[in-house]
Amino acid sequence: MERKALSIKDGKLFSFQPVAAREVMDVSGLYISPGFIDSHLHLEGLHLLPSVYSKAFLSHGTTTIITDLHEIANAGGLPALKWYMRLLEAIPLDVYVMAPSCVPSCRFEKGAGVLGLKELAWLRHHQRVIGLGEMMNIGGVLDRKRSVMRKIELFAGKPVDGHAPTLSGEALRAYVAAGIHSDHEATTLDEGKEKLAFGMHLFVRQGSVSKDLDALLPLIKESHLPKLSLCTDDLSARDLFQHGHLDVLLRRLVQSGLSLPRALRLATISPAHYFNLSDRKGLGPGNKADLVVFEDPKDIRVRMTIKKGRVVYRDGKRLHQGHAITTSPPSRLNVARFSLADLRQQAEGRKIHVIGVREGTLLTEHRVAEARIEDGYLLPDTDRDIIYAYVFDRYRGERRYGFGFVRGFSLQGGAIGTTYAHDSHNLIIVGDNLVDVFGVLTALTKGKGGMALSRHGSLVEHIPMPFYGIIAACDGREFLWKERRMHDALKRMGVILTNPFFQMSFLSLPVIPAVRLTTSGLFDVACRHCIETSYD
Amino acid sequence: MERKALSIKDGKLFSFQPVAAREVMDVSGLYISPGFIDSHLHLEGLHLLPSVYSKAFLSHGTTTIITDLHEIANAGGLPALKWYMRLLEAIPLDVYVMAPSCVPSCRFEKGAGVLGLKELAWLRHHQRVIGLGEMMNIGGVLDRKRSVMRKIELFAGKPVDGHAPTLSGEALRAYVAAGIHSDHEATTLDEGKEKLAFGMHLFVRQGSVSKDLDALLPLIKESHLPKLSLCTDDLSARDLFQHGHLDVLLRRLVQSGLSLPRALRLATISPAHYFNLSDRKGLGPGNKADLVVFEDPKDIRVRMTIKKGRVVYRDGKRLHQGHAITTSPPSRLNVARFSLADLRQQAEGRKIHVIGVREGTLLTEHRVAEARIEDGYLLPDTDRDIIYAYVFDRYRGERRYGFGFVRGFSLQGGAIGTTYAHDSHNLIIVGDNLVDVFGVLTALTKGKGGMALSRHGSLVEHIPMPFYGIIAACDGREFLWKERRMHDALKRMGVILTNPFFQMSFLSLPVIPAVRLTTSGLFDVACRHCIETSYD
Repeated sequence: MERKALSIKDGKLFSFQPVAAREVMDVSGLYISPGFIDSHLHLEGLHLLPSVYSKAFLSHGTTTIITDLHEIANAGGLPALKWYMRLLEAIPLDVYVMAPSCVPSCRFEKGAGVLGLKELAWLRHHQRVIGLGEMMNIGGVLDRKRSVMRKIELFAGKPVDGHAPTLSGEALRAYVAAGIHSDHEATTLDEGKEKLAFGMHLFVRQGSVSKDLDALLPLIKESHLPKLSLCTDDLSARDLFQHGHLDVLLRRLVQSGLSLPRALRLATISPAHYFNLSDRKGLGPGNKADLVVFEDPKDIRVRMTIKKGRVVYRDGKRLHQGHAITTSPPSRLNVARFSLADLRQQAEGRKIHVIGVREGTLLTEHRVAEARIEDGYLLPDTDRDIIYAYVFDRYRGERRYGFGFVRGFSLQGGAIGTTYAHDSHNLIIVGDNLVDVFGVLTALTKGKGGMALSRHGSLVEHIPMPFYGIIAACDGREFLWKERRMHDALKRMGVILTNPFFQMSFLSLPVIPAVRLTTSGLFDVACRHCIETSYD
Repeated sequence: MERKALSIKDGKLFSFQPVAAREVMDVSGLYISPGFIDSHLHLEGLHLLPSVYSKAFLSHGTTTIITDLHEIANAGGLPALKWYMRLLEAIPLDVYVMAPSCVPSCRFEKGAGVLGLKELAWLRHHQRVIGLGEMMNIGGVLDRKRSVMRKIELFAGKPVDGHAPTLSGEALRAYVAAGIHSDHEATTLDEGKEKLAFGMHLFVRQGSVSKDLDALLPLIKESHLPKLSLCTDDLSARDLFQHGHLDVLLRRLVQSGLSLPRALRLATISPAHYFNLSDRKGLGPGNKADLVVFEDPKDIRVRMTIKKGRVVYRDGKRLHQGHAITTSPPSRLNVARFSLADLRQQAEGRKIHVIGVREGTLLTEHRVAEARIEDGYLLPDTDRDIIYAYVFDRYRGERRYGFGFVRGFSLQGGAIGTTYAHDSHNLIIVGDNLVDVFGVLTALTKGKGGMALSRHGSLVEHIPMPFYGIIAACDGREFLWKERRMHDALKRMGVILTNPFFQMSFLSLPVIPAVRLTTSGLFDVACRHCIETSYD
């Protein structure tokens, strides 16, 4: 940390010597850092348009985000990815894209599109694409499956991000040796240490879902700094707007005893080197003038953010608006028409399979329970917290849908549903009665997807997401207000999960153990097949 | 330096633990380094096809070369650049391209083509292109000329190489602050220090022309290592085949007292970081298996080179051939037809301008001398070492040509000429009589360019360069043998310059002081205009 004058010209750092300037700002007594870089974030999970969220990031000092857009790619294929990247042109925030490596997440998933070699080759040449996104197909890598290895080869020489929760030993070595450079899934100190020892770059993650910063704190010492960056992975709009972003993580690092320069490095120079961003590898002349100004080195609160030489945020005021791109909803949902009667399930035995959901984990349990049957039809049993779960295809108008039972929502007298359901983002609904399930289905189908809640037979709240069923058209305040109302209603319905929509959205992802619900029915992740036949 | 087993899989480093393997090599007692990287080299100056020179580089441990192909771009525009890059596909050596930023070198040059923004935008997306090549238009940068700055902006976030001989102080600061990251023109310790202080990455140069290693040795200490790489810039085929490449530089570094790991870093990890080559930023698993094996740490002689996991050189044997691409000469010279009489120059006064050439420098002197006149025509005067110099356009068949006198070649009884003349690569001839000048002109025009020597009226030697007039079709041995014969003949003609062809090839480059010869006549570099009218 040095006391210096700092001049900016043409959006770049010019000099640390006093020079004649058109405009002079007095920031004496304040600290200046390069702008913050998030190394791994799925931006679509904010459910907001880039023009809406970019100002929020800038106000918290974030000037560069590395995103893996596999949500929008699943929801709309390459056209959706292109559409999203066009929107990114209009915002002052720099967003670089890691080409999604696993769309769909596995061969049992049916989303809107497939990103194959051809699509990835196209993406590779896009100005905004700087590497290959998290390689979640661990089995494919370990087996050196040709289709998987060709994706990695396509991005040879560029960063290739990993995704290897709990992988260790020889399997981890083989995974890294395939040409994978980073990981953001380390949740324990030992896991982090081993991954660093194998040469991986670690993105220490602290987002709205997984919070690994405290566990990995001991790793963040001098010798590892060039190999450590910060990321949030999944970030809710609520957390971003109400709490902040990397500034929150940096505060925690500094307050835990890490020196300010070391802490800042994880959010600035380290990721710039890893992601090969030559114009922000430090604070020398010629580097991009992306700067953050703050007052208290022990409690980093952003006073001012400068992006490409322009003040975009100062003392609570967002100054730079970017230009809004008017964009019309590019897609409609294609859900088959069902009647309420179509949703009823005939009992085929006296036992049912139940997906168990628990607070604080994405893992599910596979349970078998006695069925509750009336007139030959399966019923929920709220006394035992067993309610309906449905997954409807929303891309091909398939009449076949997935049905199962779920336990752990403690939801009574209603249903919730969303078209943001990992990773295929089909239409998922959870509820304890068919009237509300049907109400949510109708609202989401007619209303361009989104999130909906029906209680006692009437639609209480609906946040439409006209953009591929995963992004809303509203501004941040309206979104948060509606979301809050929905959570309040959920509490009144008996739900005690902290984030029931979030838990629901992972019910359909067939790559996390133990059991999931897809449009083809209940899916056993370990055995990789459907447990029951689907319900036509 | 550690003792370890090292295994390779799929062309990548796999592990430093002993593992079961199909093939085992015993290299106990030997040292292993990552393959060497040349940070800046104009490959076309070797005058050989990539399939010819690649084996020579590999046998000296070089596995990656960063090249600026501005010679071929001047000689044939974007199509020639594409042609050359296709040839690079067939060789095992990795060659990455910095897009030539200054083609033509200035607005007074007329080469085959112009690389404007459109062409650079195309190049930017090419898999092989990783940044913007040396920005020689220093004035344009300092003036923040729009056309120049747009080229730099086009490559924002990627490495942008500089070229700023002797630039210092505020001018250097302004040059760097425009977004230029490196320099390879520092020839003194002070110059190197200042450039490092401004945050530039320095390529320490030791090639066939400029030799700056000794002067910059004191810089190469620990604190600067991440900012230092090695380059050769211009390398003759003779030096490459007879002496070597970066192994020569590394020997010198180690023998001067630098530790082996520090020396190696300049040719491996440092340039990999600067050029953002994510697959060779170290020796960890998953990195490209480009390796050099040598025995004596104090006298690095390459025993074995491994490229992408395959042994391509071992103990004097080049093992990997690559596959030869058959390529037909893609262009013909378009030189107007001249008779011998067309070459005669009528005297227009009693004084002539003379370009003075000296050993060991590319700078020329501007002299004025008494003309020697016979029958109204200008004659050379070998007593005063004043001989003819001609530059003929070879792209547009222009009848206008540049004529002047040159001093310093001490050439008697003949003429030499070449179509490799910086940067436009027009046809340049120097000689003391019209018969030999005409003989060289005829040989080069009919024989697809190259280098030619005529003595006492007969063509003694000719190395045709059918590929854009700058690259020969022969193998290395034949090329060196012909070149040697030409130099021997030159000595017999009285020439004492070490490299007369080389000196001649820079006579036409109008960006180096003081005076040059272009197709439009004598050009004053400082005043930026032609001294005399051209000779039609």
